[in-house]
Amino acid sequence: MRPAEELRDAVEAYLRSLTFAPELGHLEDALRYSLESQGKRIRPVLCLAVVEAAGGDMEQALPAAAALELVHTFSLVHDDLPALDDDSERRGRPSSHVAFGEGVALLAGDALFAEAIRLALTYDDPQIARELVDATLGMIGGQHRDITGDDDDLAELHRLKTGKLFSASVGLGLRLSHVQDADQAAWRVFGDEIGLLFQVVDDILDGDGLASRLPADEVRRIAEGAAERAREQLDAVSADTSVLRELVDAVAFRTA
Amino acid sequence: MRPAEELRDAVEAYLRSLTFAPELGHLEDALRYSLESQGKRIRPVLCLAVVEAAGGDMEQALPAAAALELVHTFSLVHDDLPALDDDSERRGRPSSHVAFGEGVALLAGDALFAEAIRLALTYDDPQIARELVDATLGMIGGQHRDITGDDDDLAELHRLKTGKLFSASVGLGLRLSHVQDADQAAWRVFGDEIGLLFQVVDDILDGDGLASRLPADEVRRIAEGAAERAREQLDAVSADTSVLRELVDAVAFRTA
Repeated sequence: MRPAEELRDAVEAYLRSLTFAPELGHLEDALRYSLESQGKRIRPVLCLAVVEAAGGDMEQALPAAAALELVHTFSLVHDDLPALDDDSERRGRPSSHVAFGEGVALLAGDALFAEAIRLALTYDDPQIARELVDATLGMIGGQHRDITGDDDDLAELHRLKTGKLFSASVGLGLRLSHVQDADQAAWRVFGDEIGLLFQVVDDILDGDGLASRLPADEVRRIAEGAAERAREQLDAVSADTSVLRELVDAVAFRTA
Repeated sequence: MRPAEELRDAVEAYLRSLTFAPELGHLEDALRYSLESQGKRIRPVLCLAVVEAAGGDMEQALPAAAALELVHTFSLVHDDLPALDDDSERRGRPSSHVAFGEGVALLAGDALFAEAIRLALTYDDPQIARELVDATLGMIGGQHRDITGDDDDLAELHRLKTGKLFSASVGLGLRLSHVQDADQAAWRVFGDEIGLLFQVVDDILDGDGLASRLPADEVRRIAEGAAERAREQLDAVSADTSVLRELVDAVAFRTA
């Protein structure tokens, strides 16, 4: 079992080595700028950790893991635009539209999404790309609920905006490890729970979402419940899930 | 051979019947608004006409044809945004961001692209989605050249921004009709030439691009050259290409 840090290094190296469609020309600079911003890479690391636990081939899973990070990065580049969240900083650096202009950032987001699909389509099994696209549609629907104030049901908003891509991170890992559909249930619930955990901790750190509506100890209890259920699901699969347990702790106790 | 008008009606009916990912919620209204704007549907009709000429099954090609129109519509919705061309009208109606707001239009464009890929992935052959994504990347690269003033080579800009999706319209038609790679050359050059023709006539109608740089009769000669070469390629394939010839004329002599 490779530790999480080693998986993260593999993701970083793979992202740096990516070649993009030559037709993008100088737009490639904007794609690399946003991809090089040293995020946590939690989605691709989660995917690779599932592959390792489920007995798959980590190297062979790197394109799919990278595709998850590209979809996530595409969503950040578009969300940061003035038309949506209007954030001028991302991970301590100017956001894409501040660095390159709004038009270029818009196109860079589009291109990141297209490159993500291209990576997912390097596999012969179209189910990889299908699961990624379905998750992306859920994410977009969640973002739409968020900006239009259709957020009465915060749990549903979270399930879509954040949860879908976490679930797909686990789902792609299972597909790449050829885990049969009938054996995927506990794994997939684990994916839903760690996604919920991630978002609730996000709300706590940012003081918004659930944290702005419920007392702090209640929000903390929701996070602990999600972490607990995630661990229980890992108990239910017959595999060495030690690295996945570390990831649950890392998400639960993160401070940024 | 179904006439072009019948193919167009089939595309319209199929687009109206499309169901989108339920997670999109009310964002679906913005997707339908842009798709219902009664464009010429030239890309899907071209795809279906190739399928008919090459002996494929028109009904079975409708998802791919619709995917081409969704990619085109996604590009229009994003291009119309203030960050890019800032057009407040599209086909005589308020553009998406005027009707729904910039944030929703941005997400609607993203969702149209994702739904296009989903349609392309309804086929077992991943080559369909691959060709569509590659064309989209070329289109995005062309749009980037356009907005950054990197347009010294207008022919290359046109080849990317408009030509790629025209070529893919022919290419998808060939794949869906199981035309062997070795027999695709003339068809594909035809796709390139009708794409060039479309863009040059666009420039003439809008008074920009080539039409703003060259004398009118020279631009007209370039268009006639593309139309002539498109017809020559059709002479080179052993198929009933009468409907495709009509499309060349319709593109060459269009007035809007």
